[in-house]
Amino acid sequence: MDAESSHTQFTLYDHQYMARAIQLAKQGLYTTDPNPRVGCVIVRYDECKQGRIVGEGFHVRAGEPHAEIHALKSAGELANGATAYVTLEPCSHTGRTGPCAVALAEAKVTRVVLAMVDPNPLVSGQGIKLLEASGVVVEAGLLESDARALNPGFILRMQHQRPFVRLKMAMSLDGRTAMGSGESQWITGPEARTQVQRLRARSSAILSGVESLIMDDSRLTLRADQLALANADEVVKRQPLRVILDSRLRLPLAAACLREPGRTLVVTTEQHSEEKRRELEAAGAEIIVFPADQAGRIALADMLRWLADNEQVNELLVETGATLAGALLDANLVNELQLFVAPTLLGGEARPLFALPGLTRMADQKRLTIKEMCAVGGDWRIIAEPYLAKPCAD
Amino acid sequence: MDAESSHTQFTLYDHQYMARAIQLAKQGLYTTDPNPRVGCVIVRYDECKQGRIVGEGFHVRAGEPHAEIHALKSAGELANGATAYVTLEPCSHTGRTGPCAVALAEAKVTRVVLAMVDPNPLVSGQGIKLLEASGVVVEAGLLESDARALNPGFILRMQHQRPFVRLKMAMSLDGRTAMGSGESQWITGPEARTQVQRLRARSSAILSGVESLIMDDSRLTLRADQLALANADEVVKRQPLRVILDSRLRLPLAAACLREPGRTLVVTTEQHSEEKRRELEAAGAEIIVFPADQAGRIALADMLRWLADNEQVNELLVETGATLAGALLDANLVNELQLFVAPTLLGGEARPLFALPGLTRMADQKRLTIKEMCAVGGDWRIIAEPYLAKPCAD
Repeated sequence: MDAESSHTQFTLYDHQYMARAIQLAKQGLYTTDPNPRVGCVIVRYDECKQGRIVGEGFHVRAGEPHAEIHALKSAGELANGATAYVTLEPCSHTGRTGPCAVALAEAKVTRVVLAMVDPNPLVSGQGIKLLEASGVVVEAGLLESDARALNPGFILRMQHQRPFVRLKMAMSLDGRTAMGSGESQWITGPEARTQVQRLRARSSAILSGVESLIMDDSRLTLRADQLALANADEVVKRQPLRVILDSRLRLPLAAACLREPGRTLVVTTEQHSEEKRRELEAAGAEIIVFPADQAGRIALADMLRWLADNEQVNELLVETGATLAGALLDANLVNELQLFVAPTLLGGEARPLFALPGLTRMADQKRLTIKEMCAVGGDWRIIAEPYLAKPCAD
Repeated sequence: MDAESSHTQFTLYDHQYMARAIQLAKQGLYTTDPNPRVGCVIVRYDECKQGRIVGEGFHVRAGEPHAEIHALKSAGELANGATAYVTLEPCSHTGRTGPCAVALAEAKVTRVVLAMVDPNPLVSGQGIKLLEASGVVVEAGLLESDARALNPGFILRMQHQRPFVRLKMAMSLDGRTAMGSGESQWITGPEARTQVQRLRARSSAILSGVESLIMDDSRLTLRADQLALANADEVVKRQPLRVILDSRLRLPLAAACLREPGRTLVVTTEQHSEEKRRELEAAGAEIIVFPADQAGRIALADMLRWLADNEQVNELLVETGATLAGALLDANLVNELQLFVAPTLLGGEARPLFALPGLTRMADQKRLTIKEMCAVGGDWRIIAEPYLAKPCAD
């Protein structure tokens, strides 16, 4: 069975417990990478069909137990005859704690309700089969879209071998990111910067163009004091991979990001000098060489696929300037735009948001769907999706 | 007495009836110009201090009776001993129906509650004096800021001899108003265009630069079918004055706006040709000559004052391009910005929202206060105030 063919009538209780499982999964938002965020609730129903939660769990960190194992452990003997609500199909492979599907069956759970099946086409449905073979009733597809929203990057990587690309820009109300001179600190206020820190924290990697790095010398790191999270000290133990596009290796050896904890990956082309490469490697950078297109630029789609395949990048946060941002939009590689808008005007000589050089007719405009608009301190956050780069619905 | 010195304790009833008077005043939003929007409610209180509305009125159109006269007429004999709630101090001058203050006293109203005194310093307080001299109790300052918001332009004109300048722009999410070629129809959808029609309808005049007229050949008129108002046919009987800044009289004789109902006033400088002036006058335009500054441009502050003094312009809607819009902002002459934002990207080669040539450092940015952000069809409307050009509070 799969979610699409399911015609199960879920009860209000089912909804309530799955919503709780999703809430639990969110507690892993900043720590599970590269694994998905998953939550699990174990519920016993009495003879009057009244439910009671006897176990809860969520996946915290790759290498540690999955959500189901935590929940089964907290339920103990009470799992016998219970229903398990899981936001993602239990795994069928043997990790540190054995396949979760087997663990659920061995604990004598009698029914498993899933929000979604495993998005990896190679294993999808296998956990369900394993459970059903043990006589467990399995129902799938409850609150599926909420469950999908937990893991947009993991799902895209499993299904399409590419990351979920989130482009973040800070701009004035007239669509400017910096003065003509490059001066830009700060357009937006501290509350917006906290939101950006959290976007970094949920991302596997941060992508920037070398031009922006030269201009701003950003560190591209998580800072515990700016995250404003209770588990900030845990979160910053994993620094997102820094990925810098630099076709001719112009990154200064003194760049601040090279002295920060975590890895810095510089993506370049054959055009670079071997000497600079050795110097950058000595300074702590990892270098990867990509074929260039006719214009000498790194092929963006190939680079994204490489990041998904080789670095397990689920969510990629792009923090860069108008040229790279425009190129990603133009190639329809952006899944989500997050614009932080400050209530100020910088004027027509200031730097534009996006370079879109091929765009000369209204017919070619890039239409967006606005998903959310909300105040963030004295600024506004707009979350939008380009029409052509929506994440696939399945 | 005046509003500032009043320490009256208003009752909940007072608030309720004044709120109703303000609601009535709004019914004249699109028709009273150049007069202010005013509403009046007449209430009888019984021995248990329970109130009952016995008369209502609002000012509809200049030359027709004031709000108080309509309300007194509907109350008839019941005005004797009643309380009148008026959003603006009753006039003390003799118009078609005699001074309203006298009419209220003669109808034997015993108490008059005002939202605000007359903003005209030459007559402010005289209506109150006239009432008090007749033994009427007068209390002022109830819901004053709501009452002021009814007439931002009338108040500014009376107190500072200038109009309330409302700058309207339609832009993409990246702050662009048109393609590089000038192509711009349509960035925003029909719901946004209805809102713009209503902004025109509440304005005494619409200001545009000749460059925009040459580019777009806008008619700058009210169209009944686009207003989506029950009284649209009444509203379009008054077409706002069209004011075109055109220092060298480049307006084409075939300009669409010259063939529309209503007046077109072309503001020029000594640099114009007399022949073109005669041709434009023959085509229906009125020409007014202003001194130019060193750069050959019309002095904007003087022009605004002239419009207030000579054309009784209360609210001026500016619909123009980046240059004139930027010049007005730069001179701190804009009271309110209304941005209609379409969820689309036009790219860095498209036309900017504002030319602000002197703005090169972040320290010089034009900070705004955002008053409102709301969805209008598929677009968004942002209402903002520049920090430096707020309307005076008194």
